[in-house]
Amino acid sequence: MTKIIAINAGSSSLKFQLFEMPEEKVITKGLIERIGLKNSIFSITVNGEKITETLDIENHEIAVDIMLKALKDHNIIQDINDIQGSGHRVVHGGELFPESALVTDDVLTKIESLTDLAPLHNPANLMGIKAFRKLLPNIPHVAVFDTSFHQTMPKESYLYSLPYNFYKDFGIRKYGFHGTSHKFVSERAAELLDRPLDQLRIISCHIGNGASIAAIDGGKSVDTSMGFTPLAGVTMGTRSGNLDPALIPFIMEKTGKNAEEVLNILNKESGLLGISGSSSDLRDIEQDATEGNERAKLALDVFASRIHKYMGSYATRMHGLDAIVFTAGVGENSDTVRAKVLEGLEFMGVYWDPRLNTGLRGEEAFINYPHSPVKVIVIPTDEEVVIARDVLKFGNLG
Amino acid sequence: MTKIIAINAGSSSLKFQLFEMPEEKVITKGLIERIGLKNSIFSITVNGEKITETLDIENHEIAVDIMLKALKDHNIIQDINDIQGSGHRVVHGGELFPESALVTDDVLTKIESLTDLAPLHNPANLMGIKAFRKLLPNIPHVAVFDTSFHQTMPKESYLYSLPYNFYKDFGIRKYGFHGTSHKFVSERAAELLDRPLDQLRIISCHIGNGASIAAIDGGKSVDTSMGFTPLAGVTMGTRSGNLDPALIPFIMEKTGKNAEEVLNILNKESGLLGISGSSSDLRDIEQDATEGNERAKLALDVFASRIHKYMGSYATRMHGLDAIVFTAGVGENSDTVRAKVLEGLEFMGVYWDPRLNTGLRGEEAFINYPHSPVKVIVIPTDEEVVIARDVLKFGNLG
Repeated sequence: MTKIIAINAGSSSLKFQLFEMPEEKVITKGLIERIGLKNSIFSITVNGEKITETLDIENHEIAVDIMLKALKDHNIIQDINDIQGSGHRVVHGGELFPESALVTDDVLTKIESLTDLAPLHNPANLMGIKAFRKLLPNIPHVAVFDTSFHQTMPKESYLYSLPYNFYKDFGIRKYGFHGTSHKFVSERAAELLDRPLDQLRIISCHIGNGASIAAIDGGKSVDTSMGFTPLAGVTMGTRSGNLDPALIPFIMEKTGKNAEEVLNILNKESGLLGISGSSSDLRDIEQDATEGNERAKLALDVFASRIHKYMGSYATRMHGLDAIVFTAGVGENSDTVRAKVLEGLEFMGVYWDPRLNTGLRGEEAFINYPHSPVKVIVIPTDEEVVIARDVLKFGNLG
Repeated sequence: MTKIIAINAGSSSLKFQLFEMPEEKVITKGLIERIGLKNSIFSITVNGEKITETLDIENHEIAVDIMLKALKDHNIIQDINDIQGSGHRVVHGGELFPESALVTDDVLTKIESLTDLAPLHNPANLMGIKAFRKLLPNIPHVAVFDTSFHQTMPKESYLYSLPYNFYKDFGIRKYGFHGTSHKFVSERAAELLDRPLDQLRIISCHIGNGASIAAIDGGKSVDTSMGFTPLAGVTMGTRSGNLDPALIPFIMEKTGKNAEEVLNILNKESGLLGISGSSSDLRDIEQDATEGNERAKLALDVFASRIHKYMGSYATRMHGLDAIVFTAGVGENSDTVRAKVLEGLEFMGVYWDPRLNTGLRGEEAFINYPHSPVKVIVIPTDEEVVIARDVLKFGNLG
């Protein structure tokens, strides 16, 4: 019985989840927001009840300190040394981290060297790691990267058709993201199918506010829709996904904005929000579309059609398909999007049952007809449990 | 028996082909290069022999005049009035031209209004039309647009996931190109299959130095890989195809170049040339790859894999597939590329015969096994004949 804490640190936030391992039982979880600002918010779930406190939390180290004290105060742990390992989500591992890593000084230096590739995320992730290392110096800390799972992609998948020195000199290539989630659901799919993962060809659809599709052949990612950054691929809540690259200079000229400003529009004012003009949240879009709003209908159609095309694309990539998995906010909860994504896939062996799909929300379930050669499964994702598992494994606590 | 001339005018060139219609017999063809420069080159084929002359040709009007005189001098026509109609390739018809158009002053004004969308091509195409209107004022002239065939795409295919006003205000959407070629080969495929075009789902692969893939459902384009410009889609000779849009500001920052300069790299130094570092010509790449050059192998793999994925993507788009067509320089001549693009498509009913594919160059032929539900056909394209046909139709010469 080992207590492991999984951490997702942002620039002004820190999400935590405490596990009893290897049982994978969640003991508590919580969130600290507005770190470094006035009126920071600390919340924690105790015996199923959410307790919230407002106070000033100056930095991540103080945030972690307050969290550890709260765990003691609420008798969740007796002593901070009851926590035997911490695991940290890190967005970008570049080509340096094909798997999770036990944090050492060298590992920290390497993560810092990747700041260029994830200027907003990696420094924030590092603040979390450093705070834990300082306050809990005697336990293993493990870094778990969003990109690691996709490091198995072959070169023809990850290389852009650009001058080759852009790859060698600047690290320009497809990295892919949401790796922890794609890994979790593909492993879970193999369990549910009762078949060895290394014999399965799976398309994993992680569709939330951010969204990415992955082609997973024999347990290894062979292609994914996100690219050098999480802007690429399918339509997202506020992100454009793939575009004709010639549009950037054209938009700059038409709007008089510079490249960074245009990029900001592509990241924050595009996607569902850009097309609909009203919301980045698919639930709003679906509601508005039902009420006959044409722009909302259009946003929904574009959103679903982009994902739809990846079904055939990635089945082709793997020379066939055994299962399609839906996960994350939209994937787990929107029967409308799932139905649109699965439309007309009978030609490639996908026979899904509208009665099983309709109304299914946030639950693990098969939605294909029993005779369907390709299985379709909804699987709630759990990135935190992957982090906790990797702390056991890479922290040698197993 | 009607003599029709098909014209493709570039900024310093003019390609012509004279037809006897409706027999579609090519009477002669030729090319004028270096218009507006010293030592312009005029070449024409007479009785199967190519005759070349070097002289100074100041502008497109003089070029057309010289061409008409040469047709008379070589007894190909008796009088310039023997030519009963001219047809002109125009790159961009925007949303204004869903089909070819008989040229009027109003049509010219409309084509000029689209200069913004094709700043290099449309003005050059217009120079050709204007020269013909001046020298042959009494015959119909017809404009045939690269974009028209794709105007049948539904909104969810052509709309980008950008702020909606970018579409309304700036015309930012997917237009698609190579329409004349995609139209020709899909119509020809229906003839060869002896089935009505409106019952066929075809993927048309126009793969030359530029390359685009089209999903053609019932004779109508429903999606295509090129976008707002011909830069988008698959890897090409020197063009990058689709990229993570976030790469443009990143490359600008890393190289110190401005957006236009980066766009120039994406158009002229990327694709096969960028990856291989040696050539934009697929024949060179194949030769070098055979000799063990790793970068050439990589360029070939990336090039083919991008097209490969469109097979499933567009079959999904149409909920199934009846035929795959290969055309243009590479599509007609490279058995290597065709083999890589067709690899592992059995799961969607594509069974092709390597014995029929290997060595096939520039000839019309089926390369599928007889039992294959999806047929695979190599069809040499003929954009000029489509232009000539449209002159008959839109010039009311039929």
